[in-house]
Amino acid sequence: MIKIFVTGGTFDKDYDEKNGRLFFKETHMSEILALGRSKVEVDIETLMMIDSLDMADKDRKTIVDNCISTDGDQIIITHGTDTMTKTAAEIGRRKLSKTIVITGAMIPYKFGTSDGLFNIASALAYVQTLPAGVYIAMNGRVFEYDRVRKNRDTGIFEEV
Amino acid sequence: MIKIFVTGGTFDKDYDEKNGRLFFKETHMSEILALGRSKVEVDIETLMMIDSLDMADKDRKTIVDNCISTDGDQIIITHGTDTMTKTAAEIGRRKLSKTIVITGAMIPYKFGTSDGLFNIASALAYVQTLPAGVYIAMNGRVFEYDRVRKNRDTGIFEEV
Amino acid sequence: MIKIFVTGGTFDKDYDEKNGRLFFKETHMSEILALGRSKVEVDIETLMMIDSLDMADKDRKTIVDNCISTDGDQIIITHGTDTMTKTAAEIGRRKLSKTIVITGAMIPYKFGTSDGLFNIASALAYVQTLPAGVYIAMNGRVFEYDRVRKNRDTGIFEEV
Amino acid sequence: MIKIFVTGGTFDKDYDEKNGRLFFKETHMSEILALGRSKVEVDIETLMMIDSLDMADKDRKTIVDNCISTDGDQIIITHGTDTMTKTAAEIGRRKLSKTIVITGAMIPYKFGTSDGLFNIASALAYVQTLPAGVYIAMNGRVFEYDRVRKNRDTGIFEEV
Repeated sequence: MIKIFVTGGTFDKDYDEKNGRLFFKETHMSEILALGRSKVEVDIETLMMIDSLDMADKDRKTIVDNCISTDGDQIIITHGTDTMTKTAAEIGRRKLSKTIVITGAMIPYKFGTSDGLFNIASALAYVQTLPAGVYIAMNGRVFEYDRVRKNRDTGIFEEV
Repeated sequence: MIKIFVTGGTFDKDYDEKNGRLFFKETHMSEILALGRSKVEVDIETLMMIDSLDMADKDRKTIVDNCISTDGDQIIITHGTDTMTKTAAEIGRRKLSKTIVITGAMIPYKFGTSDGLFNIASALAYVQTLPAGVYIAMNGRVFEYDRVRKNRDTGIFEEV
Repeated sequence: MIKIFVTGGTFDKDYDEKNGRLFFKETHMSEILALGRSKVEVDIETLMMIDSLDMADKDRKTIVDNCISTDGDQIIITHGTDTMTKTAAEIGRRKLSKTIVITGAMIPYKFGTSDGLFNIASALAYVQTLPAGVYIAMNGRVFEYDRVRKNRDTGIFEEV
Repeated sequence: MIKIFVTGGTFDKDYDEKNGRLFFKETHMSEILALGRSKVEVDIETLMMIDSLDMADKDRKTIVDNCISTDGDQIIITHGTDTMTKTAAEIGRRKLSKTIVITGAMIPYKFGTSDGLFNIASALAYVQTLPAGVYIAMNGRVFEYDRVRKNRDTGIFEEV
């Protein structure tokens, strides 16, 4: 059983017809897995629904605490890309004996051109095959948490 | 550099407006990787474009020969689901020291409801992390080639 | 209240996972109107679900009879494009004092690249504005039933 | 030849990956017409790319002036829904002998669930069939410009 913690980020942004802005309603994780016909056993839990630029220390603590307390040793976390590496570092320094893969999207899933489904599918594969550690999976690639950064100009995660 | 061999299958079926039937035109692999914003280096090569029910011994030989002769040791093969395990067995008995992941789709990629992109994304992750061997990646899961079958009733690949 | 008679055609073809062929399950008319957020009052009735090349005289009689017996005077008919003009001619020679718009699609609605939604939306507008008569609405245009043919080479309906 | 004036609105909003906000890049009109396989002759001209809440008097003057000066007598205007009726009123009081249909979308076209394509298709049909006048086409329906309002609670245009 893979635990999936949802924290918001671009990935889950929806369009608010009332005011013409993007907002968070609920996660699209279940419909993504259904579309992909995933038969992997997962347990989806929404910890928060926020833009990762708005993520405070207490939010990161919530994420870390949940990684520690959850039963399984395979965890996926969906997260905004802007501070993804910061959260990864917070989790990483706990040296948990679990495989934790953080992923997200550059374009909201509800947009036709989103990279969200692709990233979830690869995260799901990575979490089942990688040894214990904290990883970031984006653009089909996977990085150890302390050897990656988001290139602000290109929007691409790259090794450091 | 990951080698991607395209062989056809449901995955790449298109709609022929002239006669109202499904047919093969060209692979959608590049557009799938572009949509997923994949930054994984791949080399795509179309070996054939056929329904896997029409795949003859000589076609399987072509696939095996290409797996042997290609330079890299990470290979993805897109393949129709009906005889996927048969081709996997042909490759498997060569005991190549390469990681070879076979995947496909239950619904053509050009259908809005296709599982194709999801499967490609997971295959791309599996091929980068699994040890040498021949695998089938479907529905988010991965199986060793000699421990899986397609359940004809449900259309789902399951362990045997 | 606009009456919508569904007869099948490319428009409503689905993909059968079991045998890899296209088939008819049920019409997608309701989901198209929901996606378009249509607020037009309609009554959808499936008369048959067949390829228009398989449409026999008795099927055309069924369509004509229903056009005559239905209460309203605004009718849309979804129909395969191959024999659309033949059915239109059958209805046309009854000289009904109703506005009847026949439409369809070159690509099944379930394909991402379908013209189906576009054609339904325009048919819905045409049926509300045109005087009594029998029309074919395709490619954003509308034609009187006896002044149009499908160009087999291009797949486009054109005036004659 | 139908003139299509693009002014922005929800319809053409894109997602800006750099800052996670919606913005205007260029109109999607051509790709919508291509997807719908429209064979209607149109001339697309972008007058502005703004949210209709930001539309000033001078912007409305630009729209009115262009309606007057353009050669054809069939005009479609894409427009944000919030002040659509205000612009319609500005054009309407000129009593032009042209058929002018204003339309838009509640959800950006680039979202999978957009009503944009549906509205464009119906506007294209309405502009070809309605007599001279100024109209608003939304949700499959069409209204004379001075007999419609947007219901803020439901987001639906309704007759007054």
